[in-house]
Amino acid sequence: MHGEIITIGNELVSGRTQDLNSWYTAGRLTASGLRVIRVTSVGDDEKRTDDALKRALGSSRFVIVTGGLGSTADDMTCEIAANALGRPLCINDQMLEKIEQYARIRKITMTASLKKMALMPEGARMINPKGATCGFSLVTGGVNFYFLPGVPDQTRYLIDTFVLPDILGRYETLPVMRQRIIKLYGLDEPRIAEMFRSLEEEAGDVVLGFYPHFPENHITISLRGRDEPTISKTLDRVETAISERVGAYVFAHDGREMEEVVGERLLQNEKTLSVAESCTGGLIGNRLTEVSGSSQYFQGGVISYSNRAKMDLLRVSAKTIDTHGAVSPETACEMAMGVRACMDSDLGLAVTGIAGPDGGSRDKPVGTVHIALSSEKGTFTEKYRFWGRRKQVKLNSAMMALDWVRRYLNGDPFIPGI
Amino acid sequence: MHGEIITIGNELVSGRTQDLNSWYTAGRLTASGLRVIRVTSVGDDEKRTDDALKRALGSSRFVIVTGGLGSTADDMTCEIAANALGRPLCINDQMLEKIEQYARIRKITMTASLKKMALMPEGARMINPKGATCGFSLVTGGVNFYFLPGVPDQTRYLIDTFVLPDILGRYETLPVMRQRIIKLYGLDEPRIAEMFRSLEEEAGDVVLGFYPHFPENHITISLRGRDEPTISKTLDRVETAISERVGAYVFAHDGREMEEVVGERLLQNEKTLSVAESCTGGLIGNRLTEVSGSSQYFQGGVISYSNRAKMDLLRVSAKTIDTHGAVSPETACEMAMGVRACMDSDLGLAVTGIAGPDGGSRDKPVGTVHIALSSEKGTFTEKYRFWGRRKQVKLNSAMMALDWVRRYLNGDPFIPGI
Repeated sequence: MHGEIITIGNELVSGRTQDLNSWYTAGRLTASGLRVIRVTSVGDDEKRTDDALKRALGSSRFVIVTGGLGSTADDMTCEIAANALGRPLCINDQMLEKIEQYARIRKITMTASLKKMALMPEGARMINPKGATCGFSLVTGGVNFYFLPGVPDQTRYLIDTFVLPDILGRYETLPVMRQRIIKLYGLDEPRIAEMFRSLEEEAGDVVLGFYPHFPENHITISLRGRDEPTISKTLDRVETAISERVGAYVFAHDGREMEEVVGERLLQNEKTLSVAESCTGGLIGNRLTEVSGSSQYFQGGVISYSNRAKMDLLRVSAKTIDTHGAVSPETACEMAMGVRACMDSDLGLAVTGIAGPDGGSRDKPVGTVHIALSSEKGTFTEKYRFWGRRKQVKLNSAMMALDWVRRYLNGDPFIPGI
Repeated sequence: MHGEIITIGNELVSGRTQDLNSWYTAGRLTASGLRVIRVTSVGDDEKRTDDALKRALGSSRFVIVTGGLGSTADDMTCEIAANALGRPLCINDQMLEKIEQYARIRKITMTASLKKMALMPEGARMINPKGATCGFSLVTGGVNFYFLPGVPDQTRYLIDTFVLPDILGRYETLPVMRQRIIKLYGLDEPRIAEMFRSLEEEAGDVVLGFYPHFPENHITISLRGRDEPTISKTLDRVETAISERVGAYVFAHDGREMEEVVGERLLQNEKTLSVAESCTGGLIGNRLTEVSGSSQYFQGGVISYSNRAKMDLLRVSAKTIDTHGAVSPETACEMAMGVRACMDSDLGLAVTGIAGPDGGSRDKPVGTVHIALSSEKGTFTEKYRFWGRRKQVKLNSAMMALDWVRRYLNGDPFIPGI
């Protein structure tokens, strides 16, 4: 059961306003098992709107149109819809009554432009005729059209209270649609593509989707059908097949962020964490504290951007820095041990590296990053080489460091993934 | 001169992701005096994409297409474009070389899916052939097509550096168009709208644009004409008029970020900075270190999430915390002084507050934030109340704290802006 969304307004095609209506509507329709095949935005422009409506008439079962329903000169949706859908414009009595009532209450004189708002294509039914927010619907050529005002709050209200129930009510045979999101870190796009190919047989009717979300990769597995338990079992099977292939790289089986997963594991294990950040400059702390309640397990950290901070606050020895440099496994380990000691936390996590674009050398090129994790079991360190611009090196370093904590608490072996 | 935008991806029509690409692109095109007649989003769907491309061929002079350029099976834009535009697919040598080089450097074996990325419609020219981010362009039937990757950062980069100059360069009869961006922080939308109204007379033909970019607000002033010096003089006049009205809130007269402006001021003034972050959790440090070369002026910081860290590392007295609480002007001041002392920096910046959603009280509601700045001139502090969710409170706190440093170094008085 597929349909489309048309949003109308100069502010949309000029980039002045983000089109939140189509985004919200598409999400709600998809979550209800309906398929959106296209979203079209046009300006307050007769030709383009007419074109969009006619095209929708030929390819969709339901069409949601927002915008252009006001009383000003550029609100022409009713007129254009009447022409495009071959229905003459006429006064809708229900709507006229509503407008007259509105004018009476506010002691406004009925003007031509107010009366114009009661003009609708013949056969239109008012949506939400009792509320202050209304639109209209129209069935023509077997297609259900819903015309809504462009104000986001009003659109959302009418979508949820009227449009969605109306569409779903019309198609009793609509199958169930379920989707799961699997988030991976450390596996690159070509290897995910290969994994997808190897899954083909097991996946069957399950639709696999791939969404890079730097530095993460997200996979969706979706299935529609008539029987909820069957769908659920099939999705379980595919999810297991994915885990068997790339389980070590999966950090979330739902929409959660890495910092939420790490926080949850720390809480479950009753462990506290502190961080010593050099090249990430505070990014790891920032991410950990995006989670409400993180003060239960996050003690804080030291942004040891200067060598002095590494020595004074983290007790990294001057000799280590002199001999091995600030970007070295030795310094990373001492930073991790130092922050664990000074913050009195169970785990100490440290990152030191060269984010670039300057500061690289032949031996230590830009993107060289050392991560270390100190715990009661000892201190581990590993060297990575990340690619990209400064921001990307920082993002990857922080993500990998957080992933270390996740893996450590899961009891997984460390795999240098990138 | 009109054109359209086509964005491709299941995540767009399913409402999983907001279509920031079309919004940004539409805004940039409009600001350059070009007209966008339509924005179409389709899924990774051959039929709908083909349909959208063919329709664009018949109605636009330029078409910008984003998405579907990766190496996975659902990235079919090249193939569909080749069919829709009647150009056979062939290996683009420039692109193949690029991919081989990429594989060589990263020691990856060339796979079929990597090689597939070099297939392009005949006659396609690579966009940005020297950089890591690329797309391709194609002229057919008098229409300029630009195919770009769907990753927002990459799209923006290619739009600004290649697509926009290319379109503008193709139409010689197009008059000169100049645009400036003015970034403000601390002034809300209604007050900016008022300022716009008061500017009407002075602005004349200058087009004013307003783009909220939480927590910043960006204003564009644009003018087209035939004579560069006249345009420049007129824009100067409007820029001055804006500065006269709201100059204290303007932190950048160009595209720069707050952290770049702050870094430049610190360098100019030969001052160093360190930070003590409680509720921002590392965000300020992270932003400061986004700038290459920031180690010249940024010493580092302490993420004092726990009271213990405040006392042990920053030497905040237990009595202060007991008497006034961790979220208080007194604690903020001692944090700023403490970090300045332990990092031996010229300036010490501190933030302590309640980011929410929990932890608020009647006296100290969620969003209560104290900022303090310590320098040779003494230690100043101010209380703010920020609104919104946890992330927004953090963003506003970090932004305001950085703005304090900017204002301090400018010799501006502190204005509690929000």
